Amino acid sequence: MGVRERKMTHTAQGPQGVAGVDDAGPAGEPGRWIVGVDIGGTNIVVGAVPWEGGEAAAVRSRATQPEGGPHAVVARVAEMVAETLRELERDEGVSATRIAGVGIGSPGPLNRETGVVVTTPNLGWKDFPLRDLLAEAVGLPASLDNDANCATFGEWWLGAGRGYDSLVGITLGTGIGGGLILGGELVHGASDAAGEIGHMTIDFTGRKCKCGNYGCLEAYCSGPNIAARAREGIESGAESVLTTLVGGQLELITAATVYEAAVLDDPYANEVMVETAKILAAGIANLINIFNPEAVVIAGGVTRAGDHLFTPLKAEVRRRAFRTASEACTILPAALTDTAGVIGAAGVFKKTVSGSV
Amino acid sequence: MGVRERKMTHTAQGPQGVAGVDDAGPAGEPGRWIVGVDIGGTNIVVGAVPWEGGEAAAVRSRATQPEGGPHAVVARVAEMVAETLRELERDEGVSATRIAGVGIGSPGPLNRETGVVVTTPNLGWKDFPLRDLLAEAVGLPASLDNDANCATFGEWWLGAGRGYDSLVGITLGTGIGGGLILGGELVHGASDAAGEIGHMTIDFTGRKCKCGNYGCLEAYCSGPNIAARAREGIESGAESVLTTLVGGQLELITAATVYEAAVLDDPYANEVMVETAKILAAGIANLINIFNPEAVVIAGGVTRAGDHLFTPLKAEVRRRAFRTASEACTILPAALTDTAGVIGAAGVFKKTVSGSV
Repeated sequence: MGVRERKMTHTAQGPQGVAGVDDAGPAGEPGRWIVGVDIGGTNIVVGAVPWEGGEAAAVRSRATQPEGGPHAVVARVAEMVAETLRELERDEGVSATRIAGVGIGSPGPLNRETGVVVTTPNLGWKDFPLRDLLAEAVGLPASLDNDANCATFGEWWLGAGRGYDSLVGITLGTGIGGGLILGGELVHGASDAAGEIGHMTIDFTGRKCKCGNYGCLEAYCSGPNIAARAREGIESGAESVLTTLVGGQLELITAATVYEAAVLDDPYANEVMVETAKILAAGIANLINIFNPEAVVIAGGVTRAGDHLFTPLKAEVRRRAFRTASEACTILPAALTDTAGVIGAAGVFKKTVSGSV
Repeated sequence: MGVRERKMTHTAQGPQGVAGVDDAGPAGEPGRWIVGVDIGGTNIVVGAVPWEGGEAAAVRSRATQPEGGPHAVVARVAEMVAETLRELERDEGVSATRIAGVGIGSPGPLNRETGVVVTTPNLGWKDFPLRDLLAEAVGLPASLDNDANCATFGEWWLGAGRGYDSLVGITLGTGIGGGLILGGELVHGASDAAGEIGHMTIDFTGRKCKCGNYGCLEAYCSGPNIAARAREGIESGAESVLTTLVGGQLELITAATVYEAAVLDDPYANEVMVETAKILAAGIANLINIFNPEAVVIAGGVTRAGDHLFTPLKAEVRRRAFRTASEACTILPAALTDTAGVIGAAGVFKKTVSGSV
């Protein structure tokens, strides 16, 4: 069931035991830990999460360096897992025998059942058996799910989405990822591809997207596209403190400099943020009209813009979504700033082996 | 749970009995029937559906005439239900005591729990307790769900969507409605508002929609908007057999005349159909990227355009949706042309009282 177990003793029911760990008791026993692995296009984050939920411990982050190929990434992740386990033993007195397994979050599309990453444009992988190779390398059972699903599940389990029955998670970064939770379960869809929110068309004749289509939400509201839109406006003559902030080198404008300038009350940067908020709101209103969730949780650097983002965003969602649907939905920033992916990947592991978190 | 029962005996478990019908046995016994009611902006359709599923019998349709107010509509529906029951007794030998109840599909938003229609712009109702008033009028228990949900559920239960675990239903008519099925269950959302597919923004600066927003799918692909777009092009100088078909009176162009002209291979009408297909495909690709369903079932008059619609539609969906998601999804026309709503409303009743269909 989507979990690769190596040298394991299967028990007839309940949480599965881990072989060679006779003193450890069942995986579900309090005091056990799960390692969460969050593989991104830029960084890998690894940490340990208590079985019963809680803050991630022994967290570390390293550059993904995908150019070395997928096997080098697996070796790097295995090293990071080993470091996390050593730190956990040193600081928390947790012996390696108390580790239930590893939850992996990876860009997709992927196949949870076989543990294979089908393809990842950002990493350049194709049909790569990530889960089994990592399980082998660390000698622990492992589960695999989409990175955005893991981040959403983390926010639902222990973050801003706690207690909601249905939820849409949106991560705004280099790309735009998403996850759907319904009745406490991630919606994976027919081929583990559900939740590709970033490539929702919101202008069918609009901006060209990296994916090849036109008018995807990501083509407007990802970090690089927020920066590109700001730059284009300045190149067309808009005046902004942004130009000064980057010493006249417009190519240095990033989404972060746009938020900074907006927080400094630069009218042009504010205009870019309001436009970003409105476009994002069109996408979120679509999700609310289609899915009618109790909550939408927004993660990523853009949330640092605070009210400069959320005030126009919420107003535009109210304007665009059906009243009964928007009134039932709370829109809020994510709570687990850097560890949602790690916590969620660990939560997905627990859910996979034990049926619930 | 969402079913109004009048003068009923509750049983501790299993299907609920109907009071005053001592010889009828439990509602789930084969040989029993359910009345399905499909209330639309233009017509009301009523028919009877065998408990175990099958074609709708004793079907009748009448104008809704909403201008007479909601109580007049309830009286009209009650008359139609009585006629259906008389016909069912005459033609099938089914006595009134074998009727388990009435499933109602109505435009929404509505509250399934209380049976109240919150508001329907097309009918002009507000906070109208439709379910209980109709249950009272016909002396039978009744359930209430959204009309598009009922049509989707009907196609899933007994139509084109049979056997799929997850499905999106789209009804293209005067408006565009939708329903989502996941694991054999309708997704209702936090406030019974899920599935409002027609008001998905596919061009955030686009055509004004009746709902007040800009760029909704419905503003392009509903029947009236297909006709309006065709008309606008002719007014701007396009040549088409359409002009002849309506004797020069462009205001007589309807979506149906556009399909007719397309089937006659009129290049302009074909162009309008291809554009309609492409815009619709952007919306369907969004649903496939977000929800990753096994099937999309399209209902409504526009499907009469056949390959003139489906060929460009499928090509554009393949172009816009993620490969792993679009390959997992079958796009097909609805099978229950005029009775999906009736069959689905009956199915929802059965599901509500017995937990499954």
